[in-house]
Amino acid sequence: MLNIAIAGLGTVGAGVVDLLQKNADLIATRAGKPIIIKAISARDKNKKRDCTLPNAEWVEDARSLCKMPGVDVVVELIGGANGIARDVAESALQNGKHLVTANKALLAMQGAALARTAESRKLQISFEAAVASGIPVIQTIRETLAGNHLSLVRGILNGTCNYILTRMEQAGLSFIDALREAQEQGYAEADPAADIDGHDTANKLAILAALAFGNEPDLTGVSIEGIRHLTPLDLQFARELGCRIKLLGVARMSESGLEQRVAPCLISLQSSLAQVNGALNAVLLRGDFIGDLTLEGQGAGGRATASAVVGDLISLARGHVRPAFSIPAAQLKKQSSAKPGTVQASRYYMRLQVKDKPGVVADMSAILRDEAISIESLLQRGKAKAGLVPVVLMTHTANPDAIQRAAVKIAQISTVTEKPCILRIED
Amino acid sequence: MLNIAIAGLGTVGAGVVDLLQKNADLIATRAGKPIIIKAISARDKNKKRDCTLPNAEWVEDARSLCKMPGVDVVVELIGGANGIARDVAESALQNGKHLVTANKALLAMQGAALARTAESRKLQISFEAAVASGIPVIQTIRETLAGNHLSLVRGILNGTCNYILTRMEQAGLSFIDALREAQEQGYAEADPAADIDGHDTANKLAILAALAFGNEPDLTGVSIEGIRHLTPLDLQFARELGCRIKLLGVARMSESGLEQRVAPCLISLQSSLAQVNGALNAVLLRGDFIGDLTLEGQGAGGRATASAVVGDLISLARGHVRPAFSIPAAQLKKQSSAKPGTVQASRYYMRLQVKDKPGVVADMSAILRDEAISIESLLQRGKAKAGLVPVVLMTHTANPDAIQRAAVKIAQISTVTEKPCILRIED
Repeated sequence: MLNIAIAGLGTVGAGVVDLLQKNADLIATRAGKPIIIKAISARDKNKKRDCTLPNAEWVEDARSLCKMPGVDVVVELIGGANGIARDVAESALQNGKHLVTANKALLAMQGAALARTAESRKLQISFEAAVASGIPVIQTIRETLAGNHLSLVRGILNGTCNYILTRMEQAGLSFIDALREAQEQGYAEADPAADIDGHDTANKLAILAALAFGNEPDLTGVSIEGIRHLTPLDLQFARELGCRIKLLGVARMSESGLEQRVAPCLISLQSSLAQVNGALNAVLLRGDFIGDLTLEGQGAGGRATASAVVGDLISLARGHVRPAFSIPAAQLKKQSSAKPGTVQASRYYMRLQVKDKPGVVADMSAILRDEAISIESLLQRGKAKAGLVPVVLMTHTANPDAIQRAAVKIAQISTVTEKPCILRIED
Repeated sequence: MLNIAIAGLGTVGAGVVDLLQKNADLIATRAGKPIIIKAISARDKNKKRDCTLPNAEWVEDARSLCKMPGVDVVVELIGGANGIARDVAESALQNGKHLVTANKALLAMQGAALARTAESRKLQISFEAAVASGIPVIQTIRETLAGNHLSLVRGILNGTCNYILTRMEQAGLSFIDALREAQEQGYAEADPAADIDGHDTANKLAILAALAFGNEPDLTGVSIEGIRHLTPLDLQFARELGCRIKLLGVARMSESGLEQRVAPCLISLQSSLAQVNGALNAVLLRGDFIGDLTLEGQGAGGRATASAVVGDLISLARGHVRPAFSIPAAQLKKQSSAKPGTVQASRYYMRLQVKDKPGVVADMSAILRDEAISIESLLQRGKAKAGLVPVVLMTHTANPDAIQRAAVKIAQISTVTEKPCILRIED
């Protein structure tokens, strides 16, 4: 049997307990042995949970799970990059236990150090549940695509943002109203900042970039932009341009280095990611032999995340140990970051709010011409607020630096009333 | 190092050789050791191929690869359920070599026997490449979703058919013209029967059903219908009904048993599979904890298939051995097949070709009423051929047996000129 200890009994922890109990026979058959919950730790034993508590030792301090004799694997489901979660993860490995975790913040910050500790002790860290819940993106990069040089990882990695953007497009809701609805529906937290400002996506992206490119998980290398500044008008204009707006995590490896960014982008309605609506997640992986591969499914929730945790446990029960981030931890390195000026050129979407006076398009066009940016299409219609009109343009492929410089100058035109909203078009 | 022998150097074999050579360093790093091609066998050494031949022993008879000392893995890429391919697969295992194969026909026919031989000798059979090329559907069922009771596997598993259907819809081509175009584009073989009549999809479905439901791969349990009888009108009508027609392989486990069928079906334009066009493949997996998961990518081609083969080799190099079909081979069994009458009810699409005389709709409606089938919508428009009009109807949820009985009676109406085209609507 494989004996495990579970630290943390929130939504995911309860899901894991429930799954291990409900599907115990199937799991034992597939894993080759039963998976037994030896011990559990959570703040409040008597809290109401979506699972029956198993007949396991209840431990007050999660840290003490790591020293329990007879425990083979510690499952850390507390969360957070520091505090108890980190203590538990480190202590589990130091005490010779495998570690299974869903903790994206911890891995994005401490992933390389944990992987090195694990490797030096011939232990496994598994974390399928840390990115996109039950969608097997970690496994796919680490196993099935292991023969490929990957060049691109592009994902819708945050269900909260995707739900909000979908509702803004489909129902014309403002960002604030869509957020409120998401909160009411249980798709957004009371404090939504980590989701809507892109930090959650950034954590996941740093993990995927590590797996795909042998990069030490490097959160500081991720440029991050959230979705607060988007309006329903942006989603509507995007649609008219044959696109949809998604908050994407993008990691791209090119000759100029590794580019990691989180930002709302336009993607063609023809692309697989554009079809992923509501709270779903999806990831596109591009490799030199596989071509493009897209994985889509639930990106959150206790049950789907438990599916990933238990998949990792079954793999451990089968005796599989493999490098946490695809390559030996000792060989992970800080890949050089692509400098802003060398980042791949792309087409851009730009929305301006202007006073409805003649001449503004002429001024703007001149600025773009001076930066050698050419306009692919320009839309001007409707009145958003008294006397103000939105002007939207899509550029041909342009250098990102040139776009930034142009944006600064355009913002200074006297009839432009707010900072332009600029979004990349991911082709 | 992991020493391999490759039997067969067609498109896939050449892709594997190319990948192992081009990405040798990356593969060695990820696998923990180099993967070395010790020997190769193919019919014609001098044939022009998309790879440089490695410095390996060239063997005339592929069977002799299986007895070569120092070879750890035999990679069978010859194809076909019998003949040399089968000899090589069996002999490899009997001689203590792991087997990696892309041979769907062999696995659909002999999968259980091969798995038992492998298991009794603690050897691995790996076959990610046998279904949907590089899309990691085998791995996902066997590993990441191993904690789930699956209830449904639904896939677009044949790129040739998907290309043909896409062109029939998008360009209004007839089946014959779309097939010819597919042949010209290299998406269809000179003899396309195995693809367009559904047999290729059936082989793959039998493998997936084995993995998902612990079923001995059972091709005889798959009901098979191809796409020859479809017209561009069907695709157009489907579109008007908010659907798209796809050749689907569907395996469903319910209380009435295992249902395995290959047939063109209507699926909602909102579903992820409806968005998969051209020669791409995709698979939807439904589990009790994971919910719905969709994997999409290239379903054929030397490079994408090589990616899957090499993924399997890397896993072997890491020392991972696991049950071929998720559970121990000794426990695979013939799951009871769902009887036609107990198969899940669904909505149906029915197209009739009728002489344009009053009364036919009344006759047809009476037949449906007598079978307790109610009509959700009915479309009648345009003239396809002189004096003939197509009538299309979509039923509410109906019993499959009742539909078959009604179809027989409807075909006997004097003004109905050909056998009705009946398609299930996969909801």
